[in-house]
Amino acid sequence: MPDFNKSSSQRYNHYKSLIEQRLASVTDKKLPRGIYEPAEYILAGGGKRIRPLLLILCCEAVGGKSEDALNAAAAIEILHNFTLVHDDIMDNADTRRGRETVHKKWDRDTAILSGDGLIGFAYKFLLLTKSPRIHDIAKSFTTAIIEVCEGQSYDKEFELRKEVSIDEYIMMINKKTSELLKCCAEIGALIGGGTPGEITALKDYALNIGLAFQIQDDMLDITADEKTFGKKTGGDLREGKKTYLLLKALEVVKDPVSRQKLQSVIDNKGVKNENDIPEIKKIYETNGILESCSKAVEDYTTEANSKLDIIKESHAKDMLCWFSGMLLNRTS
Amino acid sequence: MPDFNKSSSQRYNHYKSLIEQRLASVTDKKLPRGIYEPAEYILAGGGKRIRPLLLILCCEAVGGKSEDALNAAAAIEILHNFTLVHDDIMDNADTRRGRETVHKKWDRDTAILSGDGLIGFAYKFLLLTKSPRIHDIAKSFTTAIIEVCEGQSYDKEFELRKEVSIDEYIMMINKKTSELLKCCAEIGALIGGGTPGEITALKDYALNIGLAFQIQDDMLDITADEKTFGKKTGGDLREGKKTYLLLKALEVVKDPVSRQKLQSVIDNKGVKNENDIPEIKKIYETNGILESCSKAVEDYTTEANSKLDIIKESHAKDMLCWFSGMLLNRTS
Repeated sequence: MPDFNKSSSQRYNHYKSLIEQRLASVTDKKLPRGIYEPAEYILAGGGKRIRPLLLILCCEAVGGKSEDALNAAAAIEILHNFTLVHDDIMDNADTRRGRETVHKKWDRDTAILSGDGLIGFAYKFLLLTKSPRIHDIAKSFTTAIIEVCEGQSYDKEFELRKEVSIDEYIMMINKKTSELLKCCAEIGALIGGGTPGEITALKDYALNIGLAFQIQDDMLDITADEKTFGKKTGGDLREGKKTYLLLKALEVVKDPVSRQKLQSVIDNKGVKNENDIPEIKKIYETNGILESCSKAVEDYTTEANSKLDIIKESHAKDMLCWFSGMLLNRTS
Repeated sequence: MPDFNKSSSQRYNHYKSLIEQRLASVTDKKLPRGIYEPAEYILAGGGKRIRPLLLILCCEAVGGKSEDALNAAAAIEILHNFTLVHDDIMDNADTRRGRETVHKKWDRDTAILSGDGLIGFAYKFLLLTKSPRIHDIAKSFTTAIIEVCEGQSYDKEFELRKEVSIDEYIMMINKKTSELLKCCAEIGALIGGGTPGEITALKDYALNIGLAFQIQDDMLDITADEKTFGKKTGGDLREGKKTYLLLKALEVVKDPVSRQKLQSVIDNKGVKNENDIPEIKKIYETNGILESCSKAVEDYTTEANSKLDIIKESHAKDMLCWFSGMLLNRTS
């Protein structure tokens, strides 16, 4: 049992370690190596484990026990790692969390196949959950997979388009990021025996947290301190990604020289001259783009927290507020 | 309701059309195109639909209704098509069932992502099934995905190995082919309300049918009539595949010249000289390899049919026997 006198960050570390133990058991079986070695590698690659944490907290917030949610929590993290393995192939990414990506360390086919295997392992762990609501739990998980795939498909489609609206961007990150968080909230609350009202509130909380999280991610790429960020800033500009910042700037900035500079990121499929990066950062600053993004992140976070009003007071509820704050104030 | 006076092949066509109608509804939603167009394309690509048929027949054989099994039947076929899309990338295959493969018609990333989407759609349809045994049904489906991925991983691993034993080959095709058929039998029988004894019998039936099917597949590559086969024979030899025939021949053939010819298929990763194909066929014939394979197919089929002894007499049971015969006598 967790010690409720512990601070939220101590409890976070406690849950993180439980989740990682469970993840380590996914690859207890070792053969064939072509599936289990890459799976073990990606699952041991660290990360904040925010999705499984959210699932556990939502279970507790409606009166459930964290132990009952642990297999489903592992399932969500496995599913998330499947998306990383396949997305890294599509993005031709060489590194992830400071280590080689699976398709780089092994090869393309191994990454495709071990990614597929991870989906199987995810359902296997999900279905270890003992709950009279297992049918709804499995349906929620399945909806999340479909949404995440759709989000990734839109993301790839938008890369090729000249114009993407902010609304389309929000729709895409909603599918790519928020739907999985919403699924964490729903499954956690289902396992914990939540009422329909509680389930809806926690899903809405997670949805808004997801949007805040993704826009914050876009901001960090420009504003982060490179040391704590762990990589060079401006990566999204170098890759020509249509981020919330860039799309907002294209909506707001009127000065023709600045507009042309912004448009060139899209037209040239990424910044070609390193000096353009501080220049674009300057455009973001002088036109209030960073402030406007900060405000969007804060608004979504406030909206998220307000959804918790109907949830009974508990340590888990406190920790959900702490969780929003941690994501809002993160530096990497 | 099916008309039970119809002949088995008429009923097969009746079920096939029901399955295809259900499959057409998978892609009712059309966007994003990057997922739904390739999914629609592969699902409309034909094929014998033997997996969903088996699932429906096993449901009926234990007293269930075919309508109740239709969503799960579609789910199995969607899952099978996911494996085709991803396997074709790994095998660098340009065509499938006479049409371009997904990664050829679109591109690698679209094939990866639409394949992933198909797994989501498969679970979505599976979970439309109304059954008090839905938890076991979902577990069986998940086991099948993991087994199929493991089988494909062994298949890729064996391609790189110099030596593979017949036992290893059987283990691999068991995972790659039989486990999915076993899953069809199990899920069908679960939906139909089968007893534990009936479920075990039908799973054993399917497992043996799967082995017969795969060895028959290896044989057809050598013995088929090219017109009905729809492609050139000898493809497995050209690709250097370690088939049941080749492994059996390497076990049995003693003559050094013939042995060297067989070994060269493996050493050179495929036949390089077209004249070698009739020569190897001759080696298979004079050493009784084809007979021995035929016998293995017959033995597995007999074993399969014997498992049906405990199943009550019914049109569905008759049709399961017809089904084994159809697979045994197929020409493509």
